[in-house]
Amino acid sequence: MTAFEELLTHDRETRAIEQVMGRLRWDQETMMPRGAARQRAEEMAALEAVLHARHADPRIADWLAAAEAQDAAGAAKLARIRREHDRRARVPVELAAEIARCVSLSHGVWAEARAREDVAHFLPALERIVALRCEEAAALAQGGDGYDALLDEYEPGATGAGIAAMFDRMRPRLRALRDAALGAADQPAPLLGEFDRAAQIRLARHLAEVFGYDFQRGRLDLAVHPFSSGAGDDVRITTRVVETEPFNCFYSTIHEVGHAAYEQNIAPAFALSPLGRGASMGVHESQARLYENQIARSRPFCGWLFEKMRLEFGDFGLGGAEEFYATVNRLAGGHIRTEADEVQYNLHIMLRFDLERALVAGDLTVGDLEAAWNDRFEADFGYPVDRPAHGMLQDVHWAIGLFGYFPTYTLGNVYAGCLMAAMREELPDLDAAFAEGDPGPATSWLRDRVQVHGRLMAPRETIEEACGFAPHEGPLLDYLEAKFNAIYAL
Amino acid sequence: MTAFEELLTHDRETRAIEQVMGRLRWDQETMMPRGAARQRAEEMAALEAVLHARHADPRIADWLAAAEAQDAAGAAKLARIRREHDRRARVPVELAAEIARCVSLSHGVWAEARAREDVAHFLPALERIVALRCEEAAALAQGGDGYDALLDEYEPGATGAGIAAMFDRMRPRLRALRDAALGAADQPAPLLGEFDRAAQIRLARHLAEVFGYDFQRGRLDLAVHPFSSGAGDDVRITTRVVETEPFNCFYSTIHEVGHAAYEQNIAPAFALSPLGRGASMGVHESQARLYENQIARSRPFCGWLFEKMRLEFGDFGLGGAEEFYATVNRLAGGHIRTEADEVQYNLHIMLRFDLERALVAGDLTVGDLEAAWNDRFEADFGYPVDRPAHGMLQDVHWAIGLFGYFPTYTLGNVYAGCLMAAMREELPDLDAAFAEGDPGPATSWLRDRVQVHGRLMAPRETIEEACGFAPHEGPLLDYLEAKFNAIYAL
Repeated sequence: MTAFEELLTHDRETRAIEQVMGRLRWDQETMMPRGAARQRAEEMAALEAVLHARHADPRIADWLAAAEAQDAAGAAKLARIRREHDRRARVPVELAAEIARCVSLSHGVWAEARAREDVAHFLPALERIVALRCEEAAALAQGGDGYDALLDEYEPGATGAGIAAMFDRMRPRLRALRDAALGAADQPAPLLGEFDRAAQIRLARHLAEVFGYDFQRGRLDLAVHPFSSGAGDDVRITTRVVETEPFNCFYSTIHEVGHAAYEQNIAPAFALSPLGRGASMGVHESQARLYENQIARSRPFCGWLFEKMRLEFGDFGLGGAEEFYATVNRLAGGHIRTEADEVQYNLHIMLRFDLERALVAGDLTVGDLEAAWNDRFEADFGYPVDRPAHGMLQDVHWAIGLFGYFPTYTLGNVYAGCLMAAMREELPDLDAAFAEGDPGPATSWLRDRVQVHGRLMAPRETIEEACGFAPHEGPLLDYLEAKFNAIYAL
Repeated sequence: MTAFEELLTHDRETRAIEQVMGRLRWDQETMMPRGAARQRAEEMAALEAVLHARHADPRIADWLAAAEAQDAAGAAKLARIRREHDRRARVPVELAAEIARCVSLSHGVWAEARAREDVAHFLPALERIVALRCEEAAALAQGGDGYDALLDEYEPGATGAGIAAMFDRMRPRLRALRDAALGAADQPAPLLGEFDRAAQIRLARHLAEVFGYDFQRGRLDLAVHPFSSGAGDDVRITTRVVETEPFNCFYSTIHEVGHAAYEQNIAPAFALSPLGRGASMGVHESQARLYENQIARSRPFCGWLFEKMRLEFGDFGLGGAEEFYATVNRLAGGHIRTEADEVQYNLHIMLRFDLERALVAGDLTVGDLEAAWNDRFEADFGYPVDRPAHGMLQDVHWAIGLFGYFPTYTLGNVYAGCLMAAMREELPDLDAAFAEGDPGPATSWLRDRVQVHGRLMAPRETIEEACGFAPHEGPLLDYLEAKFNAIYAL
């Protein structure tokens, strides 16, 4: 075997074991008996140690030095392995181990603190995590910007400065749109009533199929927090069912189908290779958001979904498709990011982005974080944080060391805006298909233009290749303004 | 760390990863999407390679040479690791790999051959497996008996000669009992009718609880072939539901609960250690059989189960508890081992044991196997094999290289007979509890006398310690004769 082949064989086995780890996590959230938690932690630690040893194999550096790619895909595979290897090599083993240890502890501390509404209980753990991740950022950045080094893990090539500039351009238009909508005379009605659990699950399964999820290579189960997991031929999704919130079930499902279809549609030749996953968190999120929002919350698709829900649930209190459309797109006040609408979601992200960037830069201390969060929230949203679980304790991300992750959510929205604009340009009849409950023309376009490529290209390049233009925030803002100006008769 | 501690730490991680492998097999039979099979094979091969490398770690020999145990449990742990290590060390790596490769292939060939009723299609694969396992047996036996070396993997300490002598003592009494019962004037009625699937599953879950299965540390799902999997705090069982065969669902479930309760009840201090599994296949089977037969097919328990089924299914055609008892214990003709009754099951095992022992000894060729099977079957059962799927193609065992496994089933029955006799001696009121649907006194006795010890003692020693006498076939035969003489009014 050549060095290239040896390297790729080793890498393939590692990725196969990573898939096993992913299956264990899925099992933990869906199937695992409650009493198995401690044993499972030990099983996963043993597997994690195997993965660590494989990643640290000294032969990788030798293979990388000697390997030669025969084609573009081979070169992209090598580049991806080199990238991952270089990042690992820069972080001292002891530091990586200490981060893993602290993350696992602070997750529990955060959950306790949130349940008790006790910020002080969480601060020492968060302080430690911030310090460790800053140390890691410095090791990764090698003199460059620390936050960029962290961000690069989730969104290769993105920079904090670039995102900050984009967010500055977005913020005024989003706030103006939100303020206008919330000040409009007619406000859409919220959904009321109870919706049978079995019927919700039935319709969720149907929606997953409609959006192209391949049940032959996946399955749908219930979990507390919906997620998608796995790659290639085994990509599983979960949803949740609350009797009073059927939209939560349906739109969570469609969102996860966006993630899962991306993984299922990557070229089979890339399976278990360095190219066999989504290009980045941002590109991944763009698929999920586009399925969920630009398609499933569009006026024509809402007309179809309204009729589907009438068939399942009878008259459920909304007078017609137009009212249904306004309700599923309803803007409202609230403190929680995950419950926010398409417009305000991005304001939540911007708040977190600025705060975490200041933390990593050393411009904000963990001790000052709660005050900074609360001040910023009131400035951006117009009302105060009423309790910590509605404020800085609401998200798990920082507790598990995810700094640089938040902006990829809005980046996903921006990418989705670009992709939808390009798609509408090329496929003028999309709405007619959506009105029939058929996202097929859109999901096929995404499959062929984005999903099939996996990690062959860098994230921005992936979007630019698909759209024919460099991604920017314009299409998303235009889409949001057009949509909500119409709904709120602005 | 001492050598002992280093060895046990390494061993513990290996067993944790073996648990992960078990979870993947469970997932494959219960949850895995159909289209994921090829990818799953690659994931399992990668994990298998990890396990292989851990087992082959040269440090194990060094640790074993230097390790000193501090107590009896420590000594037993060392002995078990040494035993497993010695067995592995005797088999050349290439041979082990070739066996694994052939087993995986011949499993598919066997399934095809069985579906097509085509023995010739299976013979080349079987020939190869027999040759390879004989080669392995020779390497393991180092001049000793080859069959014993294979048997020792499943039932440490047992010998082919010892089992043959015991089977020779059992055969006449079993045949006489069978012949008398089948010749009796009054034959129990078979069960007829259809039984709601959901109600079957509901009652199966209830039975699992009644028999002490801990759902906090396990779960019950459906699978084509019922099995139990996992150890310690994550022991999962499966059952099957056929609308016309509720006894299949209920008694399969109770059988698997016997296996699972054994694993769940091993001392927590032994978890993920060399002692943290059942003592042998035979001892394992003894628990499953005792739960299924000596308890759940007893007259008093049948009275309770009859009423339970009446509550679930209304009048289902059996006139009373006595008739119900006779029906669940009904002896009948048939070719299939897994469908055989308590008496004839052992005759099936003896047939396979003699044939596989002759194959390994070189006294029977694979080419002559079908004729030998068919002749022996007619001699033992009194009617001919009508087609290969009812003859030598019915079991998967030989196709996947399991030689020396079959006798552990009857060994399990013999152990169960001994345990039940000893238990009845000590707990004279068992039947009163069974009549209330409460196996608790019996399962608690088994937990404390057998299950809690895991692999602390050798298999026979485990049974002898529990019973107070060396295990022998007498109690099983006495139990069967008493039971079936009464049912058939002999």
